Amino acid sequence: MFSPSIQQLIDHLQCLPGVGRKSAQRMAMHLLEREREAGIALAASLQQAMTKVGQCQCCQNFTEDDLCRICADLRRSDDQICVVEGPSDVLAVEQSGVYQGRYFVLMGHLSPIDGIGPSQLGIDKLERLVESGVSEVILATNPTVEGEATARFISEKLERFNVGVSRIAHGVPIGGELEYVDGGTLAHALNSRKSL
Amino acid sequence: MFSPSIQQLIDHLQCLPGVGRKSAQRMAMHLLEREREAGIALAASLQQAMTKVGQCQCCQNFTEDDLCRICADLRRSDDQICVVEGPSDVLAVEQSGVYQGRYFVLMGHLSPIDGIGPSQLGIDKLERLVESGVSEVILATNPTVEGEATARFISEKLERFNVGVSRIAHGVPIGGELEYVDGGTLAHALNSRKSL
Repeated sequence: MFSPSIQQLIDHLQCLPGVGRKSAQRMAMHLLEREREAGIALAASLQQAMTKVGQCQCCQNFTEDDLCRICADLRRSDDQICVVEGPSDVLAVEQSGVYQGRYFVLMGHLSPIDGIGPSQLGIDKLERLVESGVSEVILATNPTVEGEATARFISEKLERFNVGVSRIAHGVPIGGELEYVDGGTLAHALNSRKSL
Repeated sequence: MFSPSIQQLIDHLQCLPGVGRKSAQRMAMHLLEREREAGIALAASLQQAMTKVGQCQCCQNFTEDDLCRICADLRRSDDQICVVEGPSDVLAVEQSGVYQGRYFVLMGHLSPIDGIGPSQLGIDKLERLVESGVSEVILATNPTVEGEATARFISEKLERFNVGVSRIAHGVPIGGELEYVDGGTLAHALNSRKSL
């Protein structure tokens, strides 16, 4: 019963995670009734982000440039690489305030059932980075079954290099997601990391 | 720590009702990681809906044409007008399947504290519609305090016309919102409407 433009908007809003038909309808009505300009701004930034954002050539994090802000920052230490599963995890670790090194973003974790193996995560790229001279790799994948397996796999892969490999301490709750942990807990976890 | 395009997307997603910083971040990451094409399609439909959708010249419902689908449908009876608060309410009444007349969409309810009076709701327009020949006006505003006040105001305004004014029966739960009522309850409410 909605006009075609509105029905299309309601359908397309359902691509957002956690948004079903009813929420999409409420969102569309809210934008049409009260927030037209915000809706147009959202359309523009969606268009821009979807088409312009690629991955950092160095750490694989999302960025619209060749190198992400952290990789392009000359003040960051080249000595450490913190391996995380996703961009939100980079934000979480940054907010803990105790880490000054570089990152490597896997964009997922090992999941053979979904066809995600070492090459999809760019682990060969990580090995080349380590080879070029790094003293420590901190594995900060999520403390879930898949994250632990990924960390173990990477630590085995890096055994042949002369590099310290550590895992963040399990101060972070097992079964939880890194991005939802408060900065203090994460700082504790980083500080009490142990060699594998 | 996110790149500017992503940060902007996260900020703009928060214009959606019920979406805070964390949900916006999750939505942005989900789209960037897995649903780029759906994101672009959403941007296009947002842009189109925000710029093209106006109001029906007859019933005030949202439409991108001069007349909405229902007002343009010659098979609908011109004899009845069902007055509702919003476009979602039109959908709800349509889904009940028992109504074949026209609608008038107030796009809100009387709320002097927000500066919403009879002219903002287009009640003069409704009066002209009634004057042009209608046998019944069904008041289907929400069964809330504001909806009841709006219904009462409209019924008083229409007293000077030779028109039957009815209110949908209170089979719909008081204090609830029309758009969340199931079709059966709404059908019952329409069928047991009583003259004011």
